[in-house]
Amino acid sequence: MVRFRDEIKDLKAYKPGKPIEDVKREYGLTEVVKLASNENPMGTSPKVINKLKETIDTLAIYPDGNATLLKEALAQKLQLKPTQILPSSGSDEMVDMISKTFVSNGDEVIMADITFPRYITTTKMMGGIPVVVPLKDWTYDLDGMLDRINEKTKIIWLCNPNNPTGTMFSEDKLLNFLNKVPEDIVVVYDEAYREYVTSPNYPKESIKLLDDYSNLIIMRTFSKMYGLAALRVGYTMSSEDIIDNINKIRGPFNVNMIAQIAAIEALEDNEFVENCYNINKEGKEYLYSQFDDMDLEYAPSETNHIFVNVENDSNDIFVELQKRGMIIRPITGTWIRVTIGTMEQNKLFIKLLKEVLNFQTAE
Amino acid sequence: MVRFRDEIKDLKAYKPGKPIEDVKREYGLTEVVKLASNENPMGTSPKVINKLKETIDTLAIYPDGNATLLKEALAQKLQLKPTQILPSSGSDEMVDMISKTFVSNGDEVIMADITFPRYITTTKMMGGIPVVVPLKDWTYDLDGMLDRINEKTKIIWLCNPNNPTGTMFSEDKLLNFLNKVPEDIVVVYDEAYREYVTSPNYPKESIKLLDDYSNLIIMRTFSKMYGLAALRVGYTMSSEDIIDNINKIRGPFNVNMIAQIAAIEALEDNEFVENCYNINKEGKEYLYSQFDDMDLEYAPSETNHIFVNVENDSNDIFVELQKRGMIIRPITGTWIRVTIGTMEQNKLFIKLLKEVLNFQTAE
Repeated sequence: MVRFRDEIKDLKAYKPGKPIEDVKREYGLTEVVKLASNENPMGTSPKVINKLKETIDTLAIYPDGNATLLKEALAQKLQLKPTQILPSSGSDEMVDMISKTFVSNGDEVIMADITFPRYITTTKMMGGIPVVVPLKDWTYDLDGMLDRINEKTKIIWLCNPNNPTGTMFSEDKLLNFLNKVPEDIVVVYDEAYREYVTSPNYPKESIKLLDDYSNLIIMRTFSKMYGLAALRVGYTMSSEDIIDNINKIRGPFNVNMIAQIAAIEALEDNEFVENCYNINKEGKEYLYSQFDDMDLEYAPSETNHIFVNVENDSNDIFVELQKRGMIIRPITGTWIRVTIGTMEQNKLFIKLLKEVLNFQTAE
Repeated sequence: MVRFRDEIKDLKAYKPGKPIEDVKREYGLTEVVKLASNENPMGTSPKVINKLKETIDTLAIYPDGNATLLKEALAQKLQLKPTQILPSSGSDEMVDMISKTFVSNGDEVIMADITFPRYITTTKMMGGIPVVVPLKDWTYDLDGMLDRINEKTKIIWLCNPNNPTGTMFSEDKLLNFLNKVPEDIVVVYDEAYREYVTSPNYPKESIKLLDDYSNLIIMRTFSKMYGLAALRVGYTMSSEDIIDNINKIRGPFNVNMIAQIAAIEALEDNEFVENCYNINKEGKEYLYSQFDDMDLEYAPSETNHIFVNVENDSNDIFVELQKRGMIIRPITGTWIRVTIGTMEQNKLFIKLLKEVLNFQTAE
């Protein structure tokens, strides 16, 4: 028998949701709507799709490993040096690379619960000790996180706004937090959902903080608002020193060529982004009002998903909705996460949720 | 100052070759040919390109993390169970995942020198100790590798045929080797260039060995003969137990959607593969005959590249060729690696090489 690393033994493989085709087959459905993965219901900018169709003639050449043009486009847009930016194959790969850059056996890593699950998985992979601080009112307990800092702490992961709860913390709270974290501890600030934020108190100009906090890493993605989840591309910003060191961990051709081309094009289509923002905001307001009518509690969302208490076991509700062709994500207890879809999808979700909840209360 | 892992400190970031556009600008060239990265000079199957152009309408949906359809297509073609197959974002990602699955601090990992550089880089990343066995006559010294096995050995990496030397070892030698390796040591057998092999002694039916050797992992790629380097996709085969464990390390959506679609389509275009095989064989014979005429020594190649002794410092030859619009890879001492191109590219390479060598001998 071969000998796996001890750290692997207790890890669980990621269990993907059922493909839509399987759900259709299993329940004999012709239409299935998936509001489970926080994907952009508006799809991808047509400009990106057209650009790719025009551009793709050979795929035999390796991508530019340095992602030169994408870095330059980002640097110009964000007013940073290209050497402060590192594209990755989605945030998934970046979380893994950051853990590999900093976490050794026995190091402690502070993170919330509930939050993006790759923080804890990659910590365990590297033999690190996850120090998990529960959310308070479904929001980051930043003071609780500060309390857990000690000499073993290597990284603190912040997701703002948070997945899966959709909640955010304000710029004031972020600044107060950063001022209290010792500068030898890395703070990773994951802004995957930033483009959806409607609150004026959100730290909109987070990039400027890189000048003041040499221990700060900011992560962003093209998988959400920019509608490129299929291609796997995100980017990370920090000091040149930190970027240099993460770059040592990076595979030579980590971001595929199509993703690089698409990301550059997507950055330019502001109209698409604005439109998606507005549709998401309308959808959020509609769902809020429906949940209010149904007397269902929900966390205030600054994202493209809502964390809502369906007052029944979330797995049961998941199954009942799935039977009816609607896929959502059960999270914990009686709470589910639903992605804000097109208005048509939102209305269908509410219709089916009402049906399911009546069905269950009727038992 | 943040604290990086000790293992990172001595790592070097991958230095990519200059983009063709930069070479053009630097030397005022309009045409530049790159025979440096073992890419398919025939490009990609037009069937794949057409399929992608027809298929791409949205990229906002996450890829199937399980790569269900690709696994099924491979399983059917290779007569394996889908659970014995794991697609990855090129071999680069798989080498990294295998190291993370098996290598802990202080573990020894046996590999050749010169061979694919990711074996040593990912070993060091995990704190493993690379045990490097020099090639003999530019070919794997399998007996020398067996001699270095001890109780700390976790993995042995084999690349057959080897990159960058192009040489191979026979089926008999592989079997003899596998019979002598203790079954708790993982043997990773990397067949990235298998589609180009012309020798009858090559282990053509390597997959059947999975039944007999529970410690065997076989890696393949779509980046070479299949012409999909831009997309990043390869696959690995082993026992269900080993695949299950590597799968715990895998990111949730490691192979992008376009790569999955393209790989399935590429698997079906046998005519493209046959055509590329024949063109590569002709090109190899042409280059052999030219090197013979020029009295240049070369290693016998079973791949799409030739390792040749240009009898001058390989970096100087690299620079002189680059000035003339021809990019090759300097490897060690007076040896370069040149990718076998189209016949037109091969002829241009020989013309420029003759020019450069005359230029140098004339000094």
